[in-house]
Amino acid sequence: MGKSEEVVLLNYWPSPYGMRAMIALAEKGVQYEYVSVDVVNNKTELLLQMNPVHKKVPVLIHNGSPVCESLVIVQYIDELWAADGKPVFLPSDPYQRAQARFWAHYIDEQIFEFGRKIWIKTGEEVENGKKELVDSLKLMESQLGDKPYFGGEELGYVDIALVPYYSWFYTYEQFGNISIEAECPKLVEWAKRCMKKESVSKALPDPVKVHDFVVMLRKKFGVDS
Amino acid sequence: MGKSEEVVLLNYWPSPYGMRAMIALAEKGVQYEYVSVDVVNNKTELLLQMNPVHKKVPVLIHNGSPVCESLVIVQYIDELWAADGKPVFLPSDPYQRAQARFWAHYIDEQIFEFGRKIWIKTGEEVENGKKELVDSLKLMESQLGDKPYFGGEELGYVDIALVPYYSWFYTYEQFGNISIEAECPKLVEWAKRCMKKESVSKALPDPVKVHDFVVMLRKKFGVDS
Repeated sequence: MGKSEEVVLLNYWPSPYGMRAMIALAEKGVQYEYVSVDVVNNKTELLLQMNPVHKKVPVLIHNGSPVCESLVIVQYIDELWAADGKPVFLPSDPYQRAQARFWAHYIDEQIFEFGRKIWIKTGEEVENGKKELVDSLKLMESQLGDKPYFGGEELGYVDIALVPYYSWFYTYEQFGNISIEAECPKLVEWAKRCMKKESVSKALPDPVKVHDFVVMLRKKFGVDS
Repeated sequence: MGKSEEVVLLNYWPSPYGMRAMIALAEKGVQYEYVSVDVVNNKTELLLQMNPVHKKVPVLIHNGSPVCESLVIVQYIDELWAADGKPVFLPSDPYQRAQARFWAHYIDEQIFEFGRKIWIKTGEEVENGKKELVDSLKLMESQLGDKPYFGGEELGYVDIALVPYYSWFYTYEQFGNISIEAECPKLVEWAKRCMKKESVSKALPDPVKVHDFVVMLRKKFGVDS
């Protein structure tokens, strides 16, 4: 890609979706400008202009043109920066690619929502969230099997979709009074393996900072009142 | 593809998701066996075995291996049956492809859910559903612009994702007391254009039959009680 390449990422640090975009860009070695948008308190004009439909981060702005939705962004990055020697996120085999898309979609639909019940809801809904989250993570663990990564020998699309939630595990554990490591030891091993990569460790915030952020959210939404 | 190719589609006729798979297969000229599964009353062993995670139709079974989630299926069909002369659903340009994925995902997340509020909920939720659905369809209409199809000159990924809902419009109109044609005349023109293709018209059921199906569902779920 030429020098004229201009890549901007609109993001808010606790967003697991934004972390996906950061990991993908780092894996591909793409230089970009990081623009922080506090979507909880202040949706900027730039965000509203670049993602008028959902008004959410992350947004990848490539030479002025926005790409929204984290999995769409990761696929875009995978397809655009595809030169020889670059890592490839999606498998080349169409069937394996379909499986990767299936699981990324599963993660997208389920994990955040199940986890959210734990930290924003009360009573029975928290219990449901705990069960659903642990069941989901166990299912992902069984999909991983004995491979080092979901992508096989290398970090792939499903890894990028899932690993950001590792920075939220501490929050789920604190509010749910569960131990994800006790429930899913191999999955936590996998997450630690991913964290050895700078692309991942630099994208994921400190879990305690995520927890503090959620404490603030709970106050804002009146969960602790 | 060789003679040994075995393609089976598990589907239930009112499913807009299943219609997508049917349109994609027909557009590509793929011969397949259609297996009907009444997912409302009788989830078969084959379905549970082929889609244990979601237990939903459609499932494409290709040489014994299942592919689940309609948009994953449509992309799989697009990538696998990609020989010269076959129609192509996703644009070749990565940015255009990202836009198509964004809109297909938008349709997936919003349209059915908004429409569902109209026919399964009561009171204020129905009103919300009506407004949300019409706003969404208007947004899609503005995306279409003056092109014959979302895919440009040819039926594409977004067309395949959206057009199945045309068979549900009558249901939305009946239960919501709205006229989608009055609200979105160009979108309805587009749908009629799509219906001139046999791939679409053969996949979409009679709207009155969909309406009768929904009347049955409402009774089953006690909406009319």
